[in-house]
Amino acid sequence: MKKVGVALLGLGTVGGGTYRILVNNKSRIEEEYGISLEIIKIMERDKKKAEKLGVPLSVLTTDINDIISNPEINVVAEFFGGIEPAKTFLIQSLEAGKSIVTANKELFSKNWPELEMAAKKGNAGLYFEATCAGGVPVIRTLNDAMQANTITAIKGIINGTTNYILTKMSDEGADYGDVLKTAQKLGYAEANPEADVEGYDASYKLSILSTLAYKTAVPVNAVYREGITKITNADIEFGKEFGLTIKLLGISKKTDKGIEARVHPVFIPKTHPLSSVKGSFNAVYISGDAVDDIMLYGRGAGDLPTGSAIVSDIVYAGLSERHKRFPQVLRKDNCNFISDFESEYYIRLLVNDKPGVLASLSGILGKYDISITTMVQKEGENVVPLCFVTHKTCEKAIQNAVSEIKKLPDVIEVSNIIRVER
Amino acid sequence: MKKVGVALLGLGTVGGGTYRILVNNKSRIEEEYGISLEIIKIMERDKKKAEKLGVPLSVLTTDINDIISNPEINVVAEFFGGIEPAKTFLIQSLEAGKSIVTANKELFSKNWPELEMAAKKGNAGLYFEATCAGGVPVIRTLNDAMQANTITAIKGIINGTTNYILTKMSDEGADYGDVLKTAQKLGYAEANPEADVEGYDASYKLSILSTLAYKTAVPVNAVYREGITKITNADIEFGKEFGLTIKLLGISKKTDKGIEARVHPVFIPKTHPLSSVKGSFNAVYISGDAVDDIMLYGRGAGDLPTGSAIVSDIVYAGLSERHKRFPQVLRKDNCNFISDFESEYYIRLLVNDKPGVLASLSGILGKYDISITTMVQKEGENVVPLCFVTHKTCEKAIQNAVSEIKKLPDVIEVSNIIRVER
Repeated sequence: MKKVGVALLGLGTVGGGTYRILVNNKSRIEEEYGISLEIIKIMERDKKKAEKLGVPLSVLTTDINDIISNPEINVVAEFFGGIEPAKTFLIQSLEAGKSIVTANKELFSKNWPELEMAAKKGNAGLYFEATCAGGVPVIRTLNDAMQANTITAIKGIINGTTNYILTKMSDEGADYGDVLKTAQKLGYAEANPEADVEGYDASYKLSILSTLAYKTAVPVNAVYREGITKITNADIEFGKEFGLTIKLLGISKKTDKGIEARVHPVFIPKTHPLSSVKGSFNAVYISGDAVDDIMLYGRGAGDLPTGSAIVSDIVYAGLSERHKRFPQVLRKDNCNFISDFESEYYIRLLVNDKPGVLASLSGILGKYDISITTMVQKEGENVVPLCFVTHKTCEKAIQNAVSEIKKLPDVIEVSNIIRVER
Repeated sequence: MKKVGVALLGLGTVGGGTYRILVNNKSRIEEEYGISLEIIKIMERDKKKAEKLGVPLSVLTTDINDIISNPEINVVAEFFGGIEPAKTFLIQSLEAGKSIVTANKELFSKNWPELEMAAKKGNAGLYFEATCAGGVPVIRTLNDAMQANTITAIKGIINGTTNYILTKMSDEGADYGDVLKTAQKLGYAEANPEADVEGYDASYKLSILSTLAYKTAVPVNAVYREGITKITNADIEFGKEFGLTIKLLGISKKTDKGIEARVHPVFIPKTHPLSSVKGSFNAVYISGDAVDDIMLYGRGAGDLPTGSAIVSDIVYAGLSERHKRFPQVLRKDNCNFISDFESEYYIRLLVNDKPGVLASLSGILGKYDISITTMVQKEGENVVPLCFVTHKTCEKAIQNAVSEIKKLPDVIEVSNIIRVER
């Protein structure tokens, strides 16, 4: 039986989950896939973590050279998180001919070209199913199931923390700050929640997915990004009146004009399959010219779901006779990234309850060729909220119109602007 | 560049879609995957079909030997449907060392052992992504993404025709017969709808998916099967009152006691991700011990979506240096197939509106250890519908209880019994 030597860098949540899966499924994997996965070394300073998991102390090391120079090790799975020392260790592993497996989306999305070069040099493979949507096989699908398709769009709920927060706000009318606190208590959100709530984490994943889907490098800095901190219950309630659900989506599209990639809060119709993806679940909706629309759904985080993707990659890497290359990340494409993308818009204002407000508003929108599909005006005393959804228009037109609307004497504030995707 | 010679058997809907995808994407596939797919022969009697698609007449043949004996052909994709002559042609192709690609679920599910033997003999591969859920990569996921998991359950909407009919009945209050007629007009249902509405088609697919998931042969005749023809609007409306949606599901589970596999109408909670799968869409919900629950969703039929899976398989087969074997279909497992499975049950009765009916009903249920979770009794004159949902119990207990209930003097009929899955 083919032996595959494995090294784990770190025994945190996902590293520990991976260790448990590997130990508990060793003989089943041998029987079903004909390869024997042997854990040769684990790099972990914290002996208590190792003891808790029942790791034999003989495999522990704190020196990366024990891994890089060990010819028995074929695959290195990394669980450190952050950029360094993970990046250096992974590049050294690749150059030494060891395939790498990682869930580290920030590191991977920001350093894919360097990793690809090192992998090429060492004739090793890059495996990163676990970087996007945890245990959901979205990377595998993009690589191995969409060959017949030109992919035209990706829309994904690819951050569980923000989906948990927005679901709680929508279903229970809870306030953003309160839900964030609960999420932090439950471990769904970090003490410093910025990476999640400001959309950074989703932008790393969208960069990876789009780079695979369009066979063109879509670097993180080409992804427009906006977080969920400005979403209020007022918006969510107005959305419901329009039949819309709020989600933080990673959206990318390939059109004749180029590629657009963006992470921001979006209203989607409540009948859209992504609308029923609740709590910390993830889902990625992929459109191709042959397959039409498919959606993959599941747990985007957690020790065992993410460990499932990691172990799948280890088996896959172990069985591969030729590793997949990603030439697009090394190519200097002249790809056009679109920033002035088209969308429908939800706009919420606070206005003086006077006749004529709507007329002046409509005048400005008309000037920029923006038309309204639905409008709701609430009752109130003197000052009332007014909320509308536009037909499809471009970002620039909305920005220009809004800056004029702000100057109208009876407009007290433009409370929020949220994009709408059908 | 590696050349892969392809033969197509038949140019019907999916065969035609596959031809179009292959022709339109030839150079893109060469560039992205480094293999050149060449259509060497097409077996099709109808020259008009070929002309319409722009097929050069020189590749047409009506003689299978032109394909089997042609050393340039590496992959044979079959679109005949039915058992013969497809079965003989595919076995001959495999024995001649040509990998096969098929969407023919009836043929594949019923003859997998013989196909596997022929494939082994010819050192060729079996590719059948298109047999289940059209363009949705569920076979790829079970084969290449779940290695870390012991799969414990599959629940799938794997027949688009019945899902279209049940969705129309649920959303529009339409009658079964009327919707079936519309479905036939639109081409969603065959003139003879039996294979779909009686659950045969879903049972073929469930057999294939379960055989992969549990690494154990689950033959079609081990799948319990019941169609949707007895579902009425009355049931659907009562279901809504209980927060339940009706679906035809393929369900299989692996427990300590063995494997159960069944296709029948099921009520599921309207909050379940499968509940929002509407119209002719398919979705497969897979539970594994590491990954937890994942769901794959998309178009289960159609020329291009199914063609997408076929072409994906052709590329995959062309790139594979070693074909996947399925030893489980040749093994004589002593697997226990459970027929007395556990479920919750929805039961609808017509009873005389008299005091004491409920007491005698409860008495019988209690005798068989069946308890009720919810009940609705409608108002009426003399004769009223009475409807309830039980806690989990076993099939045998329900059958026994129902045959006693039928004998109660005030029970006019047991109108329907539908299983409930959470």
